[in-house]
Amino acid sequence: MNILAYGEVMLRLNPPLYKTLMQTETLDMYYTGSGLNVMAGMIQNGFNAKLLTVLPDNNLGKAAAAAVRRLGISSEALIFEGNHLGIYMLEMGYANRPSEVTYLNRTESAFNQHLLSDEQMAAALKDVDMLHICGIALSTSEQSRKNALRLAEKAASRHISVCFDFNFRSSLNTDDERAELLSAYKTVLHHAEIVFGSTRDLKELLDISGKTADEVAARFMSEYQVSRFAGTIRGQDKQAKTIKGFLYENGTQFMSAERQVHILDRIGTGDAFAAGILTGLLEQWDGQQTVDYATACGELAHTTLGDSPVLSREFVLDYMASPTDVKR
Amino acid sequence: MNILAYGEVMLRLNPPLYKTLMQTETLDMYYTGSGLNVMAGMIQNGFNAKLLTVLPDNNLGKAAAAAVRRLGISSEALIFEGNHLGIYMLEMGYANRPSEVTYLNRTESAFNQHLLSDEQMAAALKDVDMLHICGIALSTSEQSRKNALRLAEKAASRHISVCFDFNFRSSLNTDDERAELLSAYKTVLHHAEIVFGSTRDLKELLDISGKTADEVAARFMSEYQVSRFAGTIRGQDKQAKTIKGFLYENGTQFMSAERQVHILDRIGTGDAFAAGILTGLLEQWDGQQTVDYATACGELAHTTLGDSPVLSREFVLDYMASPTDVKR
Amino acid sequence: MNILAYGEVMLRLNPPLYKTLMQTETLDMYYTGSGLNVMAGMIQNGFNAKLLTVLPDNNLGKAAAAAVRRLGISSEALIFEGNHLGIYMLEMGYANRPSEVTYLNRTESAFNQHLLSDEQMAAALKDVDMLHICGIALSTSEQSRKNALRLAEKAASRHISVCFDFNFRSSLNTDDERAELLSAYKTVLHHAEIVFGSTRDLKELLDISGKTADEVAARFMSEYQVSRFAGTIRGQDKQAKTIKGFLYENGTQFMSAERQVHILDRIGTGDAFAAGILTGLLEQWDGQQTVDYATACGELAHTTLGDSPVLSREFVLDYMASPTDVKR
Amino acid sequence: MNILAYGEVMLRLNPPLYKTLMQTETLDMYYTGSGLNVMAGMIQNGFNAKLLTVLPDNNLGKAAAAAVRRLGISSEALIFEGNHLGIYMLEMGYANRPSEVTYLNRTESAFNQHLLSDEQMAAALKDVDMLHICGIALSTSEQSRKNALRLAEKAASRHISVCFDFNFRSSLNTDDERAELLSAYKTVLHHAEIVFGSTRDLKELLDISGKTADEVAARFMSEYQVSRFAGTIRGQDKQAKTIKGFLYENGTQFMSAERQVHILDRIGTGDAFAAGILTGLLEQWDGQQTVDYATACGELAHTTLGDSPVLSREFVLDYMASPTDVKR
Amino acid sequence: MNILAYGEVMLRLNPPLYKTLMQTETLDMYYTGSGLNVMAGMIQNGFNAKLLTVLPDNNLGKAAAAAVRRLGISSEALIFEGNHLGIYMLEMGYANRPSEVTYLNRTESAFNQHLLSDEQMAAALKDVDMLHICGIALSTSEQSRKNALRLAEKAASRHISVCFDFNFRSSLNTDDERAELLSAYKTVLHHAEIVFGSTRDLKELLDISGKTADEVAARFMSEYQVSRFAGTIRGQDKQAKTIKGFLYENGTQFMSAERQVHILDRIGTGDAFAAGILTGLLEQWDGQQTVDYATACGELAHTTLGDSPVLSREFVLDYMASPTDVKR
Amino acid sequence: MNILAYGEVMLRLNPPLYKTLMQTETLDMYYTGSGLNVMAGMIQNGFNAKLLTVLPDNNLGKAAAAAVRRLGISSEALIFEGNHLGIYMLEMGYANRPSEVTYLNRTESAFNQHLLSDEQMAAALKDVDMLHICGIALSTSEQSRKNALRLAEKAASRHISVCFDFNFRSSLNTDDERAELLSAYKTVLHHAEIVFGSTRDLKELLDISGKTADEVAARFMSEYQVSRFAGTIRGQDKQAKTIKGFLYENGTQFMSAERQVHILDRIGTGDAFAAGILTGLLEQWDGQQTVDYATACGELAHTTLGDSPVLSREFVLDYMASPTDVKR
Repeated sequence: MNILAYGEVMLRLNPPLYKTLMQTETLDMYYTGSGLNVMAGMIQNGFNAKLLTVLPDNNLGKAAAAAVRRLGISSEALIFEGNHLGIYMLEMGYANRPSEVTYLNRTESAFNQHLLSDEQMAAALKDVDMLHICGIALSTSEQSRKNALRLAEKAASRHISVCFDFNFRSSLNTDDERAELLSAYKTVLHHAEIVFGSTRDLKELLDISGKTADEVAARFMSEYQVSRFAGTIRGQDKQAKTIKGFLYENGTQFMSAERQVHILDRIGTGDAFAAGILTGLLEQWDGQQTVDYATACGELAHTTLGDSPVLSREFVLDYMASPTDVKR
Repeated sequence: MNILAYGEVMLRLNPPLYKTLMQTETLDMYYTGSGLNVMAGMIQNGFNAKLLTVLPDNNLGKAAAAAVRRLGISSEALIFEGNHLGIYMLEMGYANRPSEVTYLNRTESAFNQHLLSDEQMAAALKDVDMLHICGIALSTSEQSRKNALRLAEKAASRHISVCFDFNFRSSLNTDDERAELLSAYKTVLHHAEIVFGSTRDLKELLDISGKTADEVAARFMSEYQVSRFAGTIRGQDKQAKTIKGFLYENGTQFMSAERQVHILDRIGTGDAFAAGILTGLLEQWDGQQTVDYATACGELAHTTLGDSPVLSREFVLDYMASPTDVKR
Repeated sequence: MNILAYGEVMLRLNPPLYKTLMQTETLDMYYTGSGLNVMAGMIQNGFNAKLLTVLPDNNLGKAAAAAVRRLGISSEALIFEGNHLGIYMLEMGYANRPSEVTYLNRTESAFNQHLLSDEQMAAALKDVDMLHICGIALSTSEQSRKNALRLAEKAASRHISVCFDFNFRSSLNTDDERAELLSAYKTVLHHAEIVFGSTRDLKELLDISGKTADEVAARFMSEYQVSRFAGTIRGQDKQAKTIKGFLYENGTQFMSAERQVHILDRIGTGDAFAAGILTGLLEQWDGQQTVDYATACGELAHTTLGDSPVLSREFVLDYMASPTDVKR
Repeated sequence: MNILAYGEVMLRLNPPLYKTLMQTETLDMYYTGSGLNVMAGMIQNGFNAKLLTVLPDNNLGKAAAAAVRRLGISSEALIFEGNHLGIYMLEMGYANRPSEVTYLNRTESAFNQHLLSDEQMAAALKDVDMLHICGIALSTSEQSRKNALRLAEKAASRHISVCFDFNFRSSLNTDDERAELLSAYKTVLHHAEIVFGSTRDLKELLDISGKTADEVAARFMSEYQVSRFAGTIRGQDKQAKTIKGFLYENGTQFMSAERQVHILDRIGTGDAFAAGILTGLLEQWDGQQTVDYATACGELAHTTLGDSPVLSREFVLDYMASPTDVKR
Repeated sequence: MNILAYGEVMLRLNPPLYKTLMQTETLDMYYTGSGLNVMAGMIQNGFNAKLLTVLPDNNLGKAAAAAVRRLGISSEALIFEGNHLGIYMLEMGYANRPSEVTYLNRTESAFNQHLLSDEQMAAALKDVDMLHICGIALSTSEQSRKNALRLAEKAASRHISVCFDFNFRSSLNTDDERAELLSAYKTVLHHAEIVFGSTRDLKELLDISGKTADEVAARFMSEYQVSRFAGTIRGQDKQAKTIKGFLYENGTQFMSAERQVHILDRIGTGDAFAAGILTGLLEQWDGQQTVDYATACGELAHTTLGDSPVLSREFVLDYMASPTDVKR
Repeated sequence: MNILAYGEVMLRLNPPLYKTLMQTETLDMYYTGSGLNVMAGMIQNGFNAKLLTVLPDNNLGKAAAAAVRRLGISSEALIFEGNHLGIYMLEMGYANRPSEVTYLNRTESAFNQHLLSDEQMAAALKDVDMLHICGIALSTSEQSRKNALRLAEKAASRHISVCFDFNFRSSLNTDDERAELLSAYKTVLHHAEIVFGSTRDLKELLDISGKTADEVAARFMSEYQVSRFAGTIRGQDKQAKTIKGFLYENGTQFMSAERQVHILDRIGTGDAFAAGILTGLLEQWDGQQTVDYATACGELAHTTLGDSPVLSREFVLDYMASPTDVKR
């Protein structure tokens, strides 16, 4: 099974554990991005994965490519052009102190400035079984939006499954942009078989109403002919924050148990969940097994450093089977 | 608003997270001190602050001054003389393991050896609206005690509000010293409008009795003509340690809710609370708002590294309004 | 009081806090081993301790010896020969994520290849009051098994108390090896006065049955003429993992309260417990005091880095008397 | 004496000593920029200095401001706006291996996007004796060029000395830009009393010819009514790289001896030289003393980390008087 | 062009710059090995390269594979089996202080214990133009020797160029082993077209005599039908250590100039030279250009951390064309 | 052979390589002191060594003791009392940039405040063959001076060789102190058989005149009945700093060749030389061999981190025999 993601690679820079930017003289580096993270998850789950992205054509772009390969992701679809890479600073919280993200210029990144050619798309889609697109690419630049739409179309026309992650942040867009964005979302959704998101996204962005979450999801899946819709619900019980996964699959809803999360590094946990869901689908597990596994992936991703999943499928399954203090 | 603190700057040296002195080959450096911490808190709260202290006239003193400025505190009242800076070693605990402090020679520090001149005091007090004095200065040396007393007097005579932090540790003093100390405390208290401490301090040091904490506080405030008395009460419920802030303000008591604390770095949390209270007073918030805010400042200060507050007023207010995992 | 341990010293290498092997470019070093850890605990408890082990005759062996001395353990019984030191990699977990151990070649280590001479044994046993042997030495190589058996015999014949730690991992052995191992265990047990283990060990390895844990322990102690049998029971209540210590002493069972553990570094906590028990015995504390103290030692060992105990007897006693946030 | 610089603050990120970007997982942070560096040098030389620049209005901008203050530079003229800070990556060379700089997006930085208001300029120029402008500001954006030109004009009209650093890199500009750039350079030069650069700059950019360097410099100084022109000549003798400083002062040329440089960190050494020259002028040293001192500043700046000078005037003078191994 | 190397991957562990093992608590990790290093060099030179090796089937093996990919080397021929990876400790020298290597157990490594199957060899050799074998594989174990011999044979029979690196250390072998070793060397040499080594190797191991180095080389190349023989001669002039490269190519000798080396990290410099020679051959440069380039590669490899080349072909060519302090 | 040193242990704190105090947030720790360093050297040279010193009776004192043991020095003569340890900050230079030392309070250290009892001295001197005293102890406090004098006397009366290191810094003393100091020096010298120093010391402190260095040394040795006088002469040739060792032994002068030094860490190099001389004496090498070896020890000590020698006798001898790049 070969999976391809289209998405931006950014450089995450964070002060060492728990320091703030004003306190630090060093930064830890992680190359990240939703597509990268989901592909890293697919590798940990035992699949082949490659990433279609644009990296700057300089030493930093080379270093980013090395990081992509290090995760096990194929670098054959990487494109080198331009000279800027998007960067965000992360000040990691502790316990109840939230982490804080500071974005630096992202619009001028190589990824957001480059229009993919038909040849680049065709080469990337070769021998691919599934394409993953993240909604962020629809809003970061006109170029990335166009790229995403054309890719989704080309994939659909080649009968490659399209998997789409909403990743919609309503606060980031003006009303004008919103109209354009909505149109782009609708276009991609019509090509998508599998969608990640929340019912809030469905309501807020797509204006789908319903009395219950189930009803909203059902209407959405019917209207857009989406066969699977999955996501996580985050809560807070008395003692701790929690996560609960859901998966709507051809008319049936599967819910994981609600699990406590212990946050070391919050970012990328949704991507680990998504890779878990895709694993269940590709392995043809039943829906309950799939959502339980994906939720465990997401839960454990809170406890590892960096945005990309780093725990193997075997590790997660062992953890689900019998939690221990030390694995020998 | 311009606030001035008089207090010792020490060098805190701690092994990297969770190591002991015997296990380490490196030490993390933080310049600290109660006055410095409260001023750093005032800066985070959006005020101007300066520090009157004596630093050694060598490269370490210069580095300390750089750290003071880095926090945003004005260095214009710093005095450079002598060659020693007080140092304490901190072995940071984890969860139920307490942190451990080892003091090195402090008596011979530049701060504790230097008698301030009238000119130095006058220069420091220029354009100042509030003076903060920490009780520790009353006990670390004869020089620092004399400096503190004269400063309080001069401030009062110039109608600068005096704010005093008890910071009394009964175990540190012999009976003889105690008499002298008591007299010094009483002198400063007579100049103080705002006092930080606990009712235990009032009972133990000042011999004020009463059936309830309220009664003790009321007697103290009346006897010493103190308009505000504030502090924190630390507890332990089944799951975790807790903090609760109180503020007696002209006859009314305000209490925050009891909040769980998650300890990353315990030291300096009372100073963050104090800066929160002063912020409320200077902003003329009502008592409840003030004590809630100050308690949130203190609570969050347990989750940041170093003794000085590093979270902005905006961060704390956002946290109080709606706690999240990641602030973007 | 002079205690000697016979046991392998290994090099533990772990990525900095919470990273995985694939994420790291640096490793933290700790020299470890059950015998080393128990001796380090005895030092923290105020006794003299030395270690009989074989280290490679090269710079790494010298560095290991320096680490032994640094812990306060006498290096006079160290033997330098060969060129390999056993190594294990530790990826430290966080909260519910288990730590993961990867062993590298251990069989070829200097310790596991070297047969001790009579002279080496005699020199090591000189002036020794108690000998500690760990069951791991019975299974890592034929040489180490022979060494352990001869040492136990020699110690017993000199009326030196033999203390034995089961440390049996049934999964590690084939049936054939098991027979040989069982025979070795029985031989050592016949020389042992004090034994650490679990009733599960007694059942699984020694085939001792009984309706209750008490009955199993009683039969074991009677059959093998063991005067003390101690260990920990690990549990999980709703909120956290727990530890409870037990000590069977000449017919009486002493149990500690069940205590929550907060895991920073899980490895070596049983060794800290063992050193706590031995301390109680050597100090002639009563059984309850002994098991309470040992359990506190084990509980706190979860919160310190490295496998060897690093908290002094005074620190543990203070902690038991009144837990605080900061010890000054 | 109060000196003001107008210039961009960038974030320099470099892998730890001698690693490449592809080899590293951490980056060391230094806030830098020619104006910042010269001001840091003025502080080390005992003057007051402030910086007029635009920092992003976010946590990174605040951290940059803290770094400015830490160096001793006044932060009162800092402006916070926008959300991007220019960044460059530095891979530090070793011995004959050159260091390598990779610029990320700089055009969109807060500094390069913001037009200064008259009020902002007036506030910054208050009580200033000298203004330092770096030629880089003339080419990084239209906004920064306009700011620089208006500032130079305003300063000149207030009889504030203008000091200008050529910093021209011919390779960075197209022919079109060059014309505009040349015009901007000429405008600033007409306001400048002190200029830093090389005779190559004079020839390449200003088209000033002459048989010897002296002749070129003389013509330039006469044509533009510049009273002082200074710079360094870098060479290579058999054993090592060298530096030699020159200063043309009202018709006289002063040259330092040629000194070997030992490169730890190459960047910013010209800024240290410039601050040395300005120091001599402000202290009214004679030309030879001035150029010798400035050259020693530049020479030593090769041996310190970061782009900003960190050695005090006293340190440099001691070094010139009698080099030792250890200063106690 | 596709190049394959067969060789062991080891883990190099070194204390941070200039510390000794006894002084350190952390180790820097580099995955290394002669085959790995030469392939990393080929990647830097712009070719495709893969590595045939055996890594342990555990987390350390996975981390090693990630490091291989990070360097750009294809991981498709990696084999995972066993559980041990060879390790060596490196204490890095400074200036005249030599570095010191301490080998730990290598014989039991997955690489040295595994016999490659015909299928594994065939898969690895697919589409390969050149095979690189290092002489070390002939002496580390019987299995690795057999693997190397069979591979050389298979490659030769498929008309894949065989490139062989002597890497002979006479001191490491007993006389008995030497006979066997000699026979193995001779077998591989008969398949080799390109050989790296020194004339001392030819004399000591192969007993080839001659009045001059040229004569020895000529006899060797004729007897073994080797078309190219290359290596470096290391010297010491008054000021510094030096390197000079030679290349015998079909009867002509090419020598580089003698170049000073500045040692930051000595290990792997010969591998960088070898990759430089192979680059010249594959690019059909003339002999002089080839040996000059390779020598520059080797010279610069002394100034980078780790055993594998990290500087690109472009960087080296720029350096040869015009050395600078900073490349922008 | 058992050697004892009496001397202060200090904590050296230095920013990571090449940073200044103002630039750093971490400090590297080394426990140091002339006596400690010479004893560490004796351990590296294969002798038994112990240290008589006073450490604070707190966690820092325990950590210092652990560091003493780690070096291989016996901790049996350590005394724990008081609560302060002398500290100095070291900013490490690079190439021509000198290192800079900043002393913090030393007078109040446990070592300088404690008068040794007869029992403590007797216990420390038991089974000792040689006593090393450093001149610094004569000037840091009255207590340490008295201790040193009494110890020298007791050692002499027990026929233990006394070895004395001048370590005189004329600039540190007022004229009054100088008289007292001179008297103390004379007293110790009368007990000393072996003295380290420079002929400048002899002239400046003892007022011994002579036309040549030889004459001065001869007069000194005769007047004070010293059998050996040794030291180093530091120079500077065109390219580098140099060191040359001398040893006057019963009327004969031995001089080493002049050797270039490459400075990584300058401090403690004289102590390494002293340990080299003592090694030659104890091994009864002839004078030339002794001074050559000691000079190589001193030379190499410039290339290692920390003040204490860390290279073994074997390493130094190998280096003298044949310098290489890498020792395997």
